[in-house]
Amino acid sequence: MSEHTVAAFDEELSELAVRVAQMGGLAEKALTEAVLALERGDEDLARRVIAADAHVDDLEREIEERAVRMIARRQPMAGDLREIMTAIKISSDLERIGDLAKNIAKRSLAVHGQAGVRQAVRGIDRMSRMALEQLRGALDAYAQRDVETALDVWRQDADLDAMYTSIFRELLTYMMEDPRAISFATHLLFAAKNIERIGDHTTNVAEMIYYLVRGELLRDARPKKDISTSAIAGLAAEDG
Amino acid sequence: MSEHTVAAFDEELSELAVRVAQMGGLAEKALTEAVLALERGDEDLARRVIAADAHVDDLEREIEERAVRMIARRQPMAGDLREIMTAIKISSDLERIGDLAKNIAKRSLAVHGQAGVRQAVRGIDRMSRMALEQLRGALDAYAQRDVETALDVWRQDADLDAMYTSIFRELLTYMMEDPRAISFATHLLFAAKNIERIGDHTTNVAEMIYYLVRGELLRDARPKKDISTSAIAGLAAEDG
Repeated sequence: MSEHTVAAFDEELSELAVRVAQMGGLAEKALTEAVLALERGDEDLARRVIAADAHVDDLEREIEERAVRMIARRQPMAGDLREIMTAIKISSDLERIGDLAKNIAKRSLAVHGQAGVRQAVRGIDRMSRMALEQLRGALDAYAQRDVETALDVWRQDADLDAMYTSIFRELLTYMMEDPRAISFATHLLFAAKNIERIGDHTTNVAEMIYYLVRGELLRDARPKKDISTSAIAGLAAEDG
Repeated sequence: MSEHTVAAFDEELSELAVRVAQMGGLAEKALTEAVLALERGDEDLARRVIAADAHVDDLEREIEERAVRMIARRQPMAGDLREIMTAIKISSDLERIGDLAKNIAKRSLAVHGQAGVRQAVRGIDRMSRMALEQLRGALDAYAQRDVETALDVWRQDADLDAMYTSIFRELLTYMMEDPRAISFATHLLFAAKNIERIGDHTTNVAEMIYYLVRGELLRDARPKKDISTSAIAGLAAEDG
């Protein structure tokens, strides 16, 4: 490639990374606001979160189209190609995170006004804070190409899984104690599951950053705490 | 490209498609056997399904690595590039389908031997048959590059969603009637949700086939039946 072409290509690469960062910011905002809507029973906020998800989807499509155009036009090799493939894969995980946050917002509309929700939602609030911290860590790691931070995020997923198990157990207790709780506790159960899956997608992003910087796959099995000794913990932990 | 290079590239493309088809076959087998394990309470079968998922993951990695090597070495344009990108995306959906089937197998281990499961599992069996039919349709459509079949599959997703809603309602009834059903019904609820998500991934595959053959995105919103009038249906339908 000529010097001019190299500069233009670098410019395109950084525009691609900017859009991935934008997507990350939107996904982070969606999760924050969805859980806030759930806590406060704020229907307007929930509806805004649901509507805003279309922007995340649009950004993913734009990133994909740009990436495919870049590959076709510039025919990049090795590191540059890895940069583009990583942008595609991270944006796909961020799209899923946005979607899961949207689903939490929908759940918040469904449990709106039901007695007992306020108390039951506290665990989900704690869990979402941890998931948000990991997501921010992963986005920072992507911006800085920082493998160590990415590995920290990757390791923290086990803590989020353990927290999910404890919330799951708590929600099941509500259901056992009072059949009227079954409806809202089922919603909250899916909301907690969605946050746990957001953690999985964040872990994928961390793995992609490792691949981007090191040029090899982080093949070790994901860190999972052994929680199989408890039957109810097992109940919560089946998906993963 | 020289004639020799073109022939070698076509060979690589068809090897890529063969591996996608293999993945599809494994995903189909996993779903079939996971639901069978659930119905029959067959623990051995469930464990085999869980162990077999590693092959699906390996195939996805192999497809990705081949695809990236092909893009880097052959620098394909337009249709050929679309062919490669489609293989990457479809394999990612098939990997998720395999994962969801594995999760159903894990659920089957968790509900093993609990009273009331046999009857409750019938709806899930029906739902899985519909999901399997769609998956087979999508895989045939990929093998034949058949847009019409892909569109049929794409349209059927609304029926699967409606069936999920009805099973969700049924499981909730079990829980309301008898607190002892809460544990297994919760597992089955997640199993049904997993099948519904398998339907979503199958729909993605159908969209990819449309993109592959027509060269443009199937932008219309996905077909969803309006089930928002019923509160419990709403409860089931939040994710999507």
